[in-house]
Amino acid sequence: MIERLKDTTVILASASPRRTKLLAQAGIRHLVLPSTCEERVSSRKPEEVVTELSRQKAEDVYTRYRQEHSKENILVIGADTVVAVGGRILGKPKDRDDAFRMISMLQGNTHQVYTGVTLLEYRNAIEKEDTFFECSHVQVYPMDDSEIRCYIGGGEPMDKAGAYGIQGEFAVFIKKIEGDYHNIVGLPIARIYQELKKHI
Amino acid sequence: MIERLKDTTVILASASPRRTKLLAQAGIRHLVLPSTCEERVSSRKPEEVVTELSRQKAEDVYTRYRQEHSKENILVIGADTVVAVGGRILGKPKDRDDAFRMISMLQGNTHQVYTGVTLLEYRNAIEKEDTFFECSHVQVYPMDDSEIRCYIGGGEPMDKAGAYGIQGEFAVFIKKIEGDYHNIVGLPIARIYQELKKHI
Repeated sequence: MIERLKDTTVILASASPRRTKLLAQAGIRHLVLPSTCEERVSSRKPEEVVTELSRQKAEDVYTRYRQEHSKENILVIGADTVVAVGGRILGKPKDRDDAFRMISMLQGNTHQVYTGVTLLEYRNAIEKEDTFFECSHVQVYPMDDSEIRCYIGGGEPMDKAGAYGIQGEFAVFIKKIEGDYHNIVGLPIARIYQELKKHI
Repeated sequence: MIERLKDTTVILASASPRRTKLLAQAGIRHLVLPSTCEERVSSRKPEEVVTELSRQKAEDVYTRYRQEHSKENILVIGADTVVAVGGRILGKPKDRDDAFRMISMLQGNTHQVYTGVTLLEYRNAIEKEDTFFECSHVQVYPMDDSEIRCYIGGGEPMDKAGAYGIQGEFAVFIKKIEGDYHNIVGLPIARIYQELKKHI
């Protein structure tokens, strides 16, 4: 959909199948090349954590890919998503008990989902970097313990920040969102598209 | 997921593949039996139109199915979705020009999506009916004419109220939503699940 991407190799620096699906939905053909760098954060603020990590992921993949394809026009997309309740970050659950603890904090409450994105571009010998984040508010219906256990039993929570997937069975517990839906899934594709348009 | 539905035939009174997919996502197994009744509306208010039409669709399918399966426990789900800008309803576009006109009204603006739902249940010789609606607010990024034409060229708008599908390529133009995302796709599954829970 974006004209100038036609001669550019777009690379998603993430192994998340949800992010790949969203980029494809936006009509952006891309390679998947997950970052392998160690994650280091210097802040506890959700918006700073996700932007820092998105930058590290994008830079890791950018450097590695450029070593072998130094003349190619490339655009690397790095992203990181966290869930925050009352400013406190929830990552991916360690085990089922941890998932139960997280979902107990989310039910009957409003939380935030932050995704940081870094666009790192090499084009006709010029480098450009753009980092931003989106925040969406999510209101969850009250859930009783058996509903939480049943949801966890389905296996959905374990690889997801905040222990839930809005695009799966958890959808029946989401009362309302305010912000970008796809940001909650893991990639704010509307914002990415609009940022890429600006760069033309 | 809802215990009492185990001995109930759930019937979706709609041919929309998006609604079927959402019910499946909520873990609700169902038959698809679209209504064939003529649609009659007595109001121009979006919330009244969608609730009226959802009721007509559910009642049509309920009556037809009950004629042949009079002793079965059944739950019929009827739904109708419209897009409204400034209180004025946009239905499905007649042709590409009509789609262009509609999307021109939506771009750079906030509109509402209303879905009316009727749950019509026959259970152990008792009939129950429940009708409600959900309204979601959708903010669309500014689009230029070539973006609108390119989107229409992809063929997505023609079978959709308001000439767009949030679950397709139009996602890149959605700045923000407030309310239930799935309501915009065509079925507020969270509200449906919560209403069904109440009836236990």
